[in-house]
Amino acid sequence: MRFSPLLDELIKSLQVLPGVGPKSAQRMAFALLERQRAGGRKLAHVLSRSLDHIGHCRQCRTFTEEALCPLCANPKRAANGQLCIVESPADVVAIEQTGQYRGRYFVLMGHLSPLDGIGPEDLGLDRLADWLAAEVFEELILATNPTVEGEATAYFIADIARRQGVRVSRIAHGVPIGGELELVDGNTLSHSLMGRKAFAD
Amino acid sequence: MRFSPLLDELIKSLQVLPGVGPKSAQRMAFALLERQRAGGRKLAHVLSRSLDHIGHCRQCRTFTEEALCPLCANPKRAANGQLCIVESPADVVAIEQTGQYRGRYFVLMGHLSPLDGIGPEDLGLDRLADWLAAEVFEELILATNPTVEGEATAYFIADIARRQGVRVSRIAHGVPIGGELELVDGNTLSHSLMGRKAFAD
Ligand SMILES: [Zn+2]
Ligand SMILES: [Zn+2]
Repeated sequence: MRFSPLLDELIKSLQVLPGVGPKSAQRMAFALLERQRAGGRKLAHVLSRSLDHIGHCRQCRTFTEEALCPLCANPKRAANGQLCIVESPADVVAIEQTGQYRGRYFVLMGHLSPLDGIGPEDLGLDRLADWLAAEVFEELILATNPTVEGEATAYFIADIARRQGVRVSRIAHGVPIGGELELVDGNTLSHSLMGRKAFAD
Repeated sequence: MRFSPLLDELIKSLQVLPGVGPKSAQRMAFALLERQRAGGRKLAHVLSRSLDHIGHCRQCRTFTEEALCPLCANPKRAANGQLCIVESPADVVAIEQTGQYRGRYFVLMGHLSPLDGIGPEDLGLDRLADWLAAEVFEELILATNPTVEGEATAYFIADIARRQGVRVSRIAHGVPIGGELELVDGNTLSHSLMGRKAFAD
C-alpha cells in the first residue's frame, strides 16, 4: 500500500540496511515513530556523524574516526611481534573474540579480484610492504577466507612477506569443532585430511 | 571488543531498531561504512526529517506528515460508509493487503490498558465519538486484536458506536485457512466452534 510520501521514503531508505526488506523496514519505521522517537533521532545524528568522520586507521586500515584505531594505538599489541591479515573489520572482531591472539592486524577491506578490477593497491598491499620493511615482525598470520579469492590473496601476501624475511603462517582449515563429518563439505574434509597432525597421547 | 568511540556509538544506536541486537548492529555499521555511505547518509537525513514531521492523521490517527493521510483524503473511501477500527498502522497495512476492504480506518495506536494508565482519551475515543456523531456510517468493523485487551477495547468502542446508532461488527476469529485443527490452540478452536455458520451446499 502507499503511505504518505515521507513515510514511504523512510521505509525505502531503511532498506539500505543489510537483511532489511520492505516488510521489516515498515516494522522498523512504525516502531521508531511509535515508541523510539528519541532513539531514532540519536541514530540519525550518530549515523550522519559516523559517515562523515569514520575512515580507515592509517596503519591497519580498519574503521576508525581516529588516526590510529584502539588496537594499533595499544603499545602491548605493538610489542607482540605478530601481524594478522584479514579481509574485513568483522574478521578482526571474530578473531578478537577467541581471546587467542594479542598482536596487530592488517585489514585488506576485500580480496584480490582481477575481474572486478580489485588489485594489490586497492587492498593497501604497497603500504603493507612498507610496514613490513620498516618494522621487524616475528610472524605474519594469513587469515583471509578459505575461498578461491582469499587463497589467491594469501599467496600474494605470503610472497611479499617472505621477500622481507618475515615468517608466514596460515590459519588451519578443517572440520569445525562440534561439527559432524557427514555434514561437512568435501573440500573442507580434504583440507582436514591433508592438514592432519600426529595424535598426542 | 571495543571499537573507536564513534563506531561503538553507531553500533549501539542501531540497536534502537526492533529485532536488531549487538551482532546485527555491527554487521549493519560495517555494511554502511563499507559500501552504502550514500544510502546511509540518505537514511540519516530521511529519518531525521521523518521524526520531525511525521505525526498523526487528524482524522484516523495513522502516521502521516500531512493533515490527512492518503486513505482519509481519498473521496472514494469517504463515500464507502464503513469504518474499521484497528490497533496499529501495521494492521491497516494487513487489511489493505487483503484487497477486501474499501472503507476508512480509525487507528487506536494501542488498546485500553488500565494497568499501564492507557484510557479512552489516549486512544482518541473522544474524537472517534465526535466523528461518529458528525458523519453517518453504515457499519463500524471492530478489528482489534483477539487478546484480552483487544476484546475489552472492542466492547468499549461497540458501546460508543451503538449509542450513535451505528451498526457494529467484529471480524471473525477461528481456525486459520490452511491451518490444521490439531495445531490450533484451544481458545481459537472454541471461538471457531461458537462462530460456526450454516454450511452452504
Ligand atoms: Zn589500526
Ligand atoms: Zn487518516
